[in-house]
Amino acid sequence: MKEGKHISLKDLACELGISISTVSRALKDSPEISGEVRLRVKALAKEWNYRPNPFAMSLLKNTPRIIGILIPDIVTHFYSSIITGIDNIARQNGYSVIITSSYDSYKAEIQCIEDLVNVRVEGIIACLSQETTDYLHFTSLEDLNIPLVFFDRICLPDVFSSVIADNIESARLATLHLLNTGSKRVAFIGGANHIEIVRQRKHGYLQALREYRIPIDKDLVFCKYMGYSEGYEGACKLLSLSNPPDAILAMTDSIAFGAMKAIKEHRLRIPDDISLIGYTDEMHSNYVDPPLTAITHQTHKMGQTVCHLLLKQIKKREKPQQIIIPTYLAVRESSVKNNQRVPPTKNTI
Amino acid sequence: MKEGKHISLKDLACELGISISTVSRALKDSPEISGEVRLRVKALAKEWNYRPNPFAMSLLKNTPRIIGILIPDIVTHFYSSIITGIDNIARQNGYSVIITSSYDSYKAEIQCIEDLVNVRVEGIIACLSQETTDYLHFTSLEDLNIPLVFFDRICLPDVFSSVIADNIESARLATLHLLNTGSKRVAFIGGANHIEIVRQRKHGYLQALREYRIPIDKDLVFCKYMGYSEGYEGACKLLSLSNPPDAILAMTDSIAFGAMKAIKEHRLRIPDDISLIGYTDEMHSNYVDPPLTAITHQTHKMGQTVCHLLLKQIKKREKPQQIIIPTYLAVRESSVKNNQRVPPTKNTI
Repeated sequence: MKEGKHISLKDLACELGISISTVSRALKDSPEISGEVRLRVKALAKEWNYRPNPFAMSLLKNTPRIIGILIPDIVTHFYSSIITGIDNIARQNGYSVIITSSYDSYKAEIQCIEDLVNVRVEGIIACLSQETTDYLHFTSLEDLNIPLVFFDRICLPDVFSSVIADNIESARLATLHLLNTGSKRVAFIGGANHIEIVRQRKHGYLQALREYRIPIDKDLVFCKYMGYSEGYEGACKLLSLSNPPDAILAMTDSIAFGAMKAIKEHRLRIPDDISLIGYTDEMHSNYVDPPLTAITHQTHKMGQTVCHLLLKQIKKREKPQQIIIPTYLAVRESSVKNNQRVPPTKNTI
Repeated sequence: MKEGKHISLKDLACELGISISTVSRALKDSPEISGEVRLRVKALAKEWNYRPNPFAMSLLKNTPRIIGILIPDIVTHFYSSIITGIDNIARQNGYSVIITSSYDSYKAEIQCIEDLVNVRVEGIIACLSQETTDYLHFTSLEDLNIPLVFFDRICLPDVFSSVIADNIESARLATLHLLNTGSKRVAFIGGANHIEIVRQRKHGYLQALREYRIPIDKDLVFCKYMGYSEGYEGACKLLSLSNPPDAILAMTDSIAFGAMKAIKEHRLRIPDDISLIGYTDEMHSNYVDPPLTAITHQTHKMGQTVCHLLLKQIKKREKPQQIIIPTYLAVRESSVKNNQRVPPTKNTI
C-alpha cells in the first residue's frame, strides 16, 4: 500500500481475497463471520491504519426490504403517477421500491422478473406488456415464495390479486356522452384483442351503442396496438372511410394524441367535425388544443391500493381479490359539438 | 403434505428450514452446497414426489449483472427518454437496469443509494435531487467498489465522470434568438442557485444580454425551484412588475408549462405580448398551444453516452471525464413576434 493513500474497505477486501461485505461485517464483529476471518481482517486494518468510513459501512445492509415494480413503459404519465402512489405506501411500511420496464416486450418482461427475483425483492407489482400471452414467468414466482399482484393490464384474476379501473362502465359512459352531445357515428380505437382491458373497454363502447339502438359498424372499430402511431394510423383509416365517423373514443392517452394529430392534418375541426375523447390525465388533457375530454384515472389511488394488496400478501397469503377503482369523465372542449348542452354525467367523483 | 397438492421449492425450503435458493442449488448438485444438505434435500424431494419447475429454477441466478439508475422524478419525459438510452446500451452489454427515484428529496436519495448497494448493482448512474448539497453518500461508494457516473445535475466533476448538455451555450443562443425576433426585455426563470445547471444556464442568459449591451435587471430573474408551480409563480410575479418582460426563458419543461398557464390566465398573447422558450422535448413542445420554441436535448444520446462511461468504469477505473452533448433550438410559434423573420440558428443538428 502506498503511503498516504486513503485505505478503503475495497482495498482490504482485495488484499484478503474476500468480499467487501465480509470485511465490513468482520470489522463490526458480526457472529456470521468466522473468528479466524475476523482476526485476519482486523490485523490488516490495523497494519494499514484503516480508518473506517461509517457512512460506507452503514450503506451495507443484509436484508433490504424492497418491492419490485414491473411496468410496460416509463414514458407514460399514467404509470409514473401510479408508481408515486405505490412508493408512498411502501415507504410508510418500511419498504423501498425499485422499478423495471419491459418496454412492452414479452422477452424483456421475463428478464425483468428474473432481475427482480435475483435482487431479492419481497414482492412484485406488475402491469403486463402488450405482447404477453403466456404467464409461466409469473406463475413460477409461487415456487419462489414471491407474492405478485397486478394492476391495469392483468392476467389470471383467480390466481393473482389485482387493481383495475372500471373499464366497461367508463367506456360506456364516454360513448353515451358523445351520443348525447351531437355525435351520431362514434368510432373506437383500441389495442390488441388478447388484452383484457381492450376487450372490456370495447364491450362498454358496444353496450352504449346498443342502448341507443345504433347498429354496430365493424369499420368503426380499429384495434391494433396501444400506441401513438397506431392512434394516428387508426384515425387516418377512419377518416378515409366513405362514411367517416363524427366522433372517436380513444382507449389510451397515446392513441388519443396520435388521433388528434391525424384529425388536425385532415384539417377537420374538433369537436364540430369530429369529437374526441381519450383516457388520459388531468395535466396532458389541459395542455392540448382544444382541451381534451378524458376518462380520468385515479392513478395515485390505484398505486396506493395495489401496494396495500401486495403488503397483505407479503404478510400472509390470502385468496386473490380484485379491486375496481372508479374513473371519472372530465368534460372539456373536445367532445361537445356546437349548440349542444352538456348533460350531467353520473360517473363523477 | 397433503395428497395431490403441488409441491414447490418453497415447501421443501420451509420443511428443511433452509433458503429456496439453497434447495434449488442442492437439486442442481451445485458444489457450493454441502453433500449432507444435498442428500437431505433430494431425499425429501423424492419422498414428496417433487416435480421440479424448470422455469422457477432458471429464474434463480447467483450473479445478476445490473446497473442502478437514480433519478429525481419519474414523471418528466426527459428522464424516461434518457433511461431508454441507458437501457439500450446496458442490454447490448449483458446488463439489466433497475430504476429508483429520489422524488427530489435528499433523504430519499440516500435511501435509494443504500438500496442499490444492497441489491448488488455493479454500477450506478445518477442525477442529483434538487435538495442535495452534501455528497458523502456518493463518495462512500468508492469504498464499496461501486463506480458512479452522473448526468445533467452533477457534482464533483473531478471525482466522477459525467454527461451534461451545453448549458451555457444553449441558454445564450435561446436568449439571442428572443432578442433577434422582437423581444426587448427577456426574463429568466430557473431553479435554486446551488445547482450547477441553474448557474450555467443563467450564465448563458446573462452573457447574451451583455452581448446586446442590455443592462442586467435583477427583477427579471426568478430562481427558486425547478417545478410547474414555481414556473407559474415566477411568471405571475414577472407579469405583475410595473415594467414587465416581453419574453421568458424557462430553464426546464415544467417551468415552461407553469409559465404558459400564468401567461394565459393574464390573457396575454404568446408570442405577441410575451414570447416563451422552454427546455423541453419534441413531443410536449408540439402538444401545447401555441407550439413551444424549445431547447431540445438529445436525451437518447445522453443516456447512451452516460451508460458507455459507466461500463468503462466498471471494466477498469479510469480518470473521470466529462462529455458535453449539444442541444438544438427548435423554433416554433411561441417565440417569434409579429413581422419578425426567424434568422437561421447556428446550433442545430
